[in-house]
Amino acid sequence: MAEVMEKTALFEFLCRMGDNTLILGHRVSEWCGHAPVLEEDIALANTALDLIGQTQLWLEYAAEVEGKGRSADDLAFLRDVWDFRNVLMLELPNGDFGQTLMRQFLFDAWQVVMLGHLVRSSDTRVSEIAEKASKEVAYHLDRSRGTVIGLGDGTEESNARMQAALERLWPYVGEMFASDETDAAMLAAGVAPDPASLRAEFDAIVLPALAEATLTVPEGDFAHKGGRDGGMHTEHLGHILCTMQWLQRAYPGAKW
Amino acid sequence: MAEVMEKTALFEFLCRMGDNTLILGHRVSEWCGHAPVLEEDIALANTALDLIGQTQLWLEYAAEVEGKGRSADDLAFLRDVWDFRNVLMLELPNGDFGQTLMRQFLFDAWQVVMLGHLVRSSDTRVSEIAEKASKEVAYHLDRSRGTVIGLGDGTEESNARMQAALERLWPYVGEMFASDETDAAMLAAGVAPDPASLRAEFDAIVLPALAEATLTVPEGDFAHKGGRDGGMHTEHLGHILCTMQWLQRAYPGAKW
Repeated sequence: MAEVMEKTALFEFLCRMGDNTLILGHRVSEWCGHAPVLEEDIALANTALDLIGQTQLWLEYAAEVEGKGRSADDLAFLRDVWDFRNVLMLELPNGDFGQTLMRQFLFDAWQVVMLGHLVRSSDTRVSEIAEKASKEVAYHLDRSRGTVIGLGDGTEESNARMQAALERLWPYVGEMFASDETDAAMLAAGVAPDPASLRAEFDAIVLPALAEATLTVPEGDFAHKGGRDGGMHTEHLGHILCTMQWLQRAYPGAKW
Repeated sequence: MAEVMEKTALFEFLCRMGDNTLILGHRVSEWCGHAPVLEEDIALANTALDLIGQTQLWLEYAAEVEGKGRSADDLAFLRDVWDFRNVLMLELPNGDFGQTLMRQFLFDAWQVVMLGHLVRSSDTRVSEIAEKASKEVAYHLDRSRGTVIGLGDGTEESNARMQAALERLWPYVGEMFASDETDAAMLAAGVAPDPASLRAEFDAIVLPALAEATLTVPEGDFAHKGGRDGGMHTEHLGHILCTMQWLQRAYPGAKW
């Protein structure tokens, strides 16, 4: 019984990790061909590719743990909204370039902290994925942090846009640090830390950067929730799935 | 052989009629809850419903003529881009309210003329559908014509927007009057007029209204083509299908 519980919790945990990178990867890929300058366009496309690559690893393992014969592709392309476990922030529309980079920065910081713990996971497979992903994510954070500071401490226009982005996104930050029985099971098994315990490390990365960017952190700790536990996604996720899953829905099992 | 040819042409013709109303109906429905005033919101939603209702009639008959066991729903929700036969103008994004109404006016005028001929079709089923649809479309035209005139001959801002809409859409008008071997077969069988022969009647409706709207008809007769013959749709159609077909693709055969 305990083993079944833990397997269920591990599957859930892996879906959370993989759905975060899948949905953000898809969102970031929407910028391809639309970024303000070529270098940023390529950087965003590379970030998206890294995230989709990480998705492959997380969902491949999730599918194995589940043991029902589903593949990573099946999980990505054949689940409906209510089975997705990404945090809500990542499914929001991109907004402008500043908002996209602000979201990237907030998620990168969380991911750096989370992966930093996961490399010491009791689950070898989890620690291997974290090891590989953390190299990519360190670079993502370096880049998004620099852009947030550059645009925040930039012109009047860019500062106002970054401040607006921060205010739009801040109420979605708290969900990354929510924890429930899945997290308790992962902690007990030594697989993953309790997300709630990561906030101080996150703040240590994010707050100084936002200060350097001359941005004001919004007050209040209200947090939108419902993504990572699948309780209630925003309407945007359904639209993402329409686009993202159409090919596999229209041509089931298509390969190339 | 002649009968097979005619059946194929009739199926093609019916898909053209039904796909026009399907795709425009879907586009217009996107306004639901977003129009500038409540009355316009309801009017647009009603127009969309009329168009979808006409689609049901056209594609139901198309499916019967085809005789392969497909239903109207199958044609609407399970064909891919290359099998759609709507003119390109109808799959373009809505743009602003003015552009949406300008497109509606141009299509309404075409539809009024076309249906006016189809009520005398040698094919009883076609004439019956045309009879029913023409009552709705007369009302659509009355409304879109009034709005085009009101906004064109309105404020500086509304006039500029309507002129921009006309310039954007005008190069897509010509496709409604293109004709090919399908049209020749329909003409020979007395089913439908040659679209090319309808331009004078269309101009007689459209040009005086545009003049009254103080709008300038763009010069040149370049016409985008590739929709009604399925040769090359715009990229927008694929995005429409993602949204429009997702449910039937994700849950094949779903009923309620």
